[in-house]
Amino acid sequence: MEKCVLIVHGGAWAIPDNRIDGSLEGVEIAAREGWKQLMQGASAVTAVQTAVNSLEDNPVFDAGYGSVLTDSGEVEMDALIMDGKAMRSGAVGAVSCVKNPVDLARHVMENTDHTLLVGKGAERQAILAGLEIVEPESLVTPEGREEWETYKQYKSAVSSLFSGRDKEKAKEPEPGIGHDTVGCVALDAKGNIACATSTGGITGKMPGRVGDTPLVGAGGYADNQVGGVSTTGHGESITKACLAYTAVINMEQGMSPSDAGKKALEGMMSKVGGAGGLIIINKSGEWTAEFSTERMAWAAIKENTLYSGIHPGQIKENNL
Amino acid sequence: MEKCVLIVHGGAWAIPDNRIDGSLEGVEIAAREGWKQLMQGASAVTAVQTAVNSLEDNPVFDAGYGSVLTDSGEVEMDALIMDGKAMRSGAVGAVSCVKNPVDLARHVMENTDHTLLVGKGAERQAILAGLEIVEPESLVTPEGREEWETYKQYKSAVSSLFSGRDKEKAKEPEPGIGHDTVGCVALDAKGNIACATSTGGITGKMPGRVGDTPLVGAGGYADNQVGGVSTTGHGESITKACLAYTAVINMEQGMSPSDAGKKALEGMMSKVGGAGGLIIINKSGEWTAEFSTERMAWAAIKENTLYSGIHPGQIKENNL
Repeated sequence: MEKCVLIVHGGAWAIPDNRIDGSLEGVEIAAREGWKQLMQGASAVTAVQTAVNSLEDNPVFDAGYGSVLTDSGEVEMDALIMDGKAMRSGAVGAVSCVKNPVDLARHVMENTDHTLLVGKGAERQAILAGLEIVEPESLVTPEGREEWETYKQYKSAVSSLFSGRDKEKAKEPEPGIGHDTVGCVALDAKGNIACATSTGGITGKMPGRVGDTPLVGAGGYADNQVGGVSTTGHGESITKACLAYTAVINMEQGMSPSDAGKKALEGMMSKVGGAGGLIIINKSGEWTAEFSTERMAWAAIKENTLYSGIHPGQIKENNL
Repeated sequence: MEKCVLIVHGGAWAIPDNRIDGSLEGVEIAAREGWKQLMQGASAVTAVQTAVNSLEDNPVFDAGYGSVLTDSGEVEMDALIMDGKAMRSGAVGAVSCVKNPVDLARHVMENTDHTLLVGKGAERQAILAGLEIVEPESLVTPEGREEWETYKQYKSAVSSLFSGRDKEKAKEPEPGIGHDTVGCVALDAKGNIACATSTGGITGKMPGRVGDTPLVGAGGYADNQVGGVSTTGHGESITKACLAYTAVINMEQGMSPSDAGKKALEGMMSKVGGAGGLIIINKSGEWTAEFSTERMAWAAIKENTLYSGIHPGQIKENNL
């Protein structure tokens, strides 16, 4: 058990002051829940799924319950899970009625020949698999609805947040606009690495928009031989930069997780513009949380210590 | 104009003998149509779109007219386009009623803040943009329908074709089963590189399945500073291997297009299993067509010479 590590994030963006405490508490709870699984001998896949379920069920985060709304006022969620042991992955895009999209991603990984199912086709599999189906409206919080009302006034929901090469602009999103993708990476007692990422996307997105989250190499990547990554930030930039896979390649070529993450984020900014964040664990159990946005809530557990932070450079340390 | 290069592919798989002539003729026609655009001063983006339109409209290929059918007997197409000049990309997944999915991908790239739209949301944008909308049934050929009837008898449409680590099995798909994604890469007179990929997917796929084609880094990648790539083959493997991006990184680290493509295909086979093919042009105008499947139809034009082939090692040369 001493080699186990688990890290979660609650999204990289300019988290407003009034959501700092809730975000930090949420990632710490999720990390503890995933860790508990690892300590009971569960696989990295089950641990990341459990932690992401906790984040999906927490209305503070934009994933599952708490998802933001599309331009037409609907919920559409994306999720990915990847098992670095067998190099298997499963993902879903633009699903509305599934309580925990990461559970459906795992079902796609384990029970289909495919890696990505979207829309009604994905929802049909959720029903066949007996996953929990809910009214999409039940996933919307009053804050999500209010954010959508505010956002309807803006034409360019995405570009006004943190895309583009203008990093200063990226640091000044409209107040109260959430887009906090969640994710987890874990290394289990057997040396297996897995990652999972889940999101409600970005307020005011076009119906049918699929972001980086469910795309292997963009929203996450896991390979037992190297390490695992989950990303967050400006989805379109992360997609074009293949952010998660870039970080894995950096590690494969000898970089530490911290250097690999920083270099991947810098490369994304210079090549396609856009800020973001990532959490990484390598096969030796070294971990990092890196972000180029103003804030990112994260929490990691290793050797009975809980680490967490939300501001650049901040690392709180507590015994479990 | 002397630096221009254009290459197309019609899919990497065990193309049956009775489709060899049609496939070769189809890629040669498409290459000539894209080339004509380049010679008239069009951008690489317009050239790849034109060539892919030709392949989409040709019933020999599994893209646009000629798309294969899902498990429930419907057409669902994916497409990607990427502009290596501005590092922009656009893609669509699981669209049914759009005559030329690559045109919609270009619309997404140029007129939305997003990189991937799927299903009904994507189709809505096609209608708003005034693109040609057709009855999905009109995209189905008698051969496509027949293939689907045959295929309904098989449970595992994907794994029986050419996935898995068993390369011998990969070489022996069921006779007559087509899954020939199409694609194009071009370098224009201004040194700009673009790629495009389009597909009807794989016979018997689950509704909502999105393959590698519309995923940046999997189905294609273009970066003026390095080169451009379009891929084809076992979608789920290509997705997990980030095949196109891997080839680009190999070139960035100094490899020729041929070495970069071969190494990317070998890496995919050893890491996640699965065969495929890719066409590549680097920023110096060197090009290659590589495949680990039994056959891949391809055609390239450079300096008034048309090159083409379909068997391993085969290169036909003709003056334009």
